[in-house]
Amino acid sequence: MKKNILIIPGDGIGQEVTEWGKQVLEVIASKFGHEFAFDNAIMGHTAIEATGNPLPDETLEKAKASDAILFGAIGHAKYDNDPSAKVRPEQGLLKIRKELGLYANLRPILLFDELLDASSLKPEILRGTDILFFRELTGDVYFGEKTRNEDNTFASDLMNYHRYEVERIARKAFEAAQTRGKRLCSVDKANVLETSRLWREVVQGLAAEYPDVETEHMFIDNAAMQLVKNPKKFDVVLTANLFGDILTDEASQIAGSMGMLASASIGDGTGFFEPIHGSAHDIAGQDKANPLASILSAALMLDIAFGLQEEAKAVTEAVDQALKAGWRTSDIAVNDTPADRILGTVAMGQKVI
Amino acid sequence: MKKNILIIPGDGIGQEVTEWGKQVLEVIASKFGHEFAFDNAIMGHTAIEATGNPLPDETLEKAKASDAILFGAIGHAKYDNDPSAKVRPEQGLLKIRKELGLYANLRPILLFDELLDASSLKPEILRGTDILFFRELTGDVYFGEKTRNEDNTFASDLMNYHRYEVERIARKAFEAAQTRGKRLCSVDKANVLETSRLWREVVQGLAAEYPDVETEHMFIDNAAMQLVKNPKKFDVVLTANLFGDILTDEASQIAGSMGMLASASIGDGTGFFEPIHGSAHDIAGQDKANPLASILSAALMLDIAFGLQEEAKAVTEAVDQALKAGWRTSDIAVNDTPADRILGTVAMGQKVI
Ligand SMILES: CC(C)[C@H](C(=O)O)[C@@H](O)C(=O)O
Ligand SMILES: CC(C)[C@H](C(=O)O)[C@@H](O)C(=O)O
Repeated sequence: MKKNILIIPGDGIGQEVTEWGKQVLEVIASKFGHEFAFDNAIMGHTAIEATGNPLPDETLEKAKASDAILFGAIGHAKYDNDPSAKVRPEQGLLKIRKELGLYANLRPILLFDELLDASSLKPEILRGTDILFFRELTGDVYFGEKTRNEDNTFASDLMNYHRYEVERIARKAFEAAQTRGKRLCSVDKANVLETSRLWREVVQGLAAEYPDVETEHMFIDNAAMQLVKNPKKFDVVLTANLFGDILTDEASQIAGSMGMLASASIGDGTGFFEPIHGSAHDIAGQDKANPLASILSAALMLDIAFGLQEEAKAVTEAVDQALKAGWRTSDIAVNDTPADRILGTVAMGQKVI
Repeated sequence: MKKNILIIPGDGIGQEVTEWGKQVLEVIASKFGHEFAFDNAIMGHTAIEATGNPLPDETLEKAKASDAILFGAIGHAKYDNDPSAKVRPEQGLLKIRKELGLYANLRPILLFDELLDASSLKPEILRGTDILFFRELTGDVYFGEKTRNEDNTFASDLMNYHRYEVERIARKAFEAAQTRGKRLCSVDKANVLETSRLWREVVQGLAAEYPDVETEHMFIDNAAMQLVKNPKKFDVVLTANLFGDILTDEASQIAGSMGMLASASIGDGTGFFEPIHGSAHDIAGQDKANPLASILSAALMLDIAFGLQEEAKAVTEAVDQALKAGWRTSDIAVNDTPADRILGTVAMGQKVI
């Protein structure tokens, strides 16, 4: 198989971790006889520094022309602490999601047995948890009109959804549920939000077409609670952009660390694969970041973008073996992890390779 | 002290639990020589059934005329599953919050040592946690304009904040931080939302006036994660209406159960005290609900509305003693709780009395 893969490291630890996602893809290509051609592009703070634009045209063109994209992370504290900044790294990520029509963000909460102890949750609460989030990614209050009045005393963001936007991601979630535990939980705030009531209507309407899937509706506040109380109760979780952002970060603690979670954004064209963690500038450039989320993002690419299930499995198993052998990065180490088993980014990447 | 207290039981288990908040207030009155006069009013589903209106004028008048309100819970599955219902129980609660100017919702996450085991989080993660949430309660996407287009293909809710709305609750949160751990964490999504950028600007501006408080800003996705990972890191948390709704429900798992958490809504006039749990129709009328959140709401009333700290302490200590003696309702029982220590609503209420 011949594929063109675009690497966008982005900001902070994105630079370090994507290197290992890429190297794993190279090993897979040579072991399984594929031809993966790689190109590079900039985005986020890195791109603002170089060009003034968080998503340069050249990056977008390369993205559209590629077969799949491996992305790192975005953001910089400089902008976070300056609420009046007009140009922001995150605009690059939001724009590429919109331009590529990446409306469905899949976030599997994959639990490695070896990491049961790394979580703040009790092992008996965690064991057996296997959740697949479908987060809507190109609508909601993220993309609605924003206003700020002249004298700076008022600001607004429009939360909104079109019926077709809910329907297309809901179908994907129902279809995924059919191949898994056959349970779908749609999360909204229909007791308060009109947007959520439209969301619930659409999901209720579709449920009839998937009679083999048990459909449940849950309010976001309750879902945020249940996810900590009893994560095993969830199979496929379907939710809007903002609620999905919050719930999936929260759910990262089930997997022991944000450093373990990969995501796939799919839609109309090229698929986009990235860790769910951020740019973590506080540890950037120090060989401390966990490369496993980027490596697992590469596995999702093999599986979802290229349909290479066997290759994807080889990657997840390599990660599992590194963990079974006792190797840990510091984010997933526990009190009794022997010091000589705690690795940096590079050494952990090499173990998986 | 002479006070007029309005009891609004509301829906579902609200009916059963407020009875115990009220009885505790009666005991306090007689022990400490106060005169508490009680009146009753309806709201929510109960009020819709009786009058067609989730907040009858009579209830609102009584509320305005009283010195403090003890509320139960609101909501009914009938409306949750009917996204097109025009009249909904929750409208009653939202309207009374707005009409009474209850802009600050205080939700203390109080951890009783005896309940460390009832949580899904590890005891060593929990021990020492003491968080006070300040959730804004009369603004945000809860109260912004809602639209639905003619052909039902589009819906929207306006998220918005005025500068003064952020400022008045932020001041209350800073002042509370000064009397506690002197740390304030303001939670927003300033990397995406204009509303959050205004929010952050205001909080940054005020921070200079409270130099003894260490102020931090955190994105909501990160906060939802940190709350599970390391709840001890928080002291006072300040956030908007929607984010506060989500975070405080999530945080209920720190206290072992939603059934333990009380809240105080304060602002321009009469204070409003209620458990953070919902109407839980599935267990309503079965003598199963935990009355402790209502009892602790009564304690918050004594403390915050009436300035009766000693009386408030007597109530919290009575709850603590009931727990120390091993009494549990089923929501806070664990595997090795002896069956004869698990009580219903009435029996638990009596133990505290
Ligand atoms: C960086 C930010 C804009 C982004 C989001 O909120 O979508 C991130 O938190 C994520 O989850 O991918
Ligand atoms: C019932 C509902 C409208 C309410 C809210 O979202 O504010 C509840 O969840 C709460 O937290 O008090």
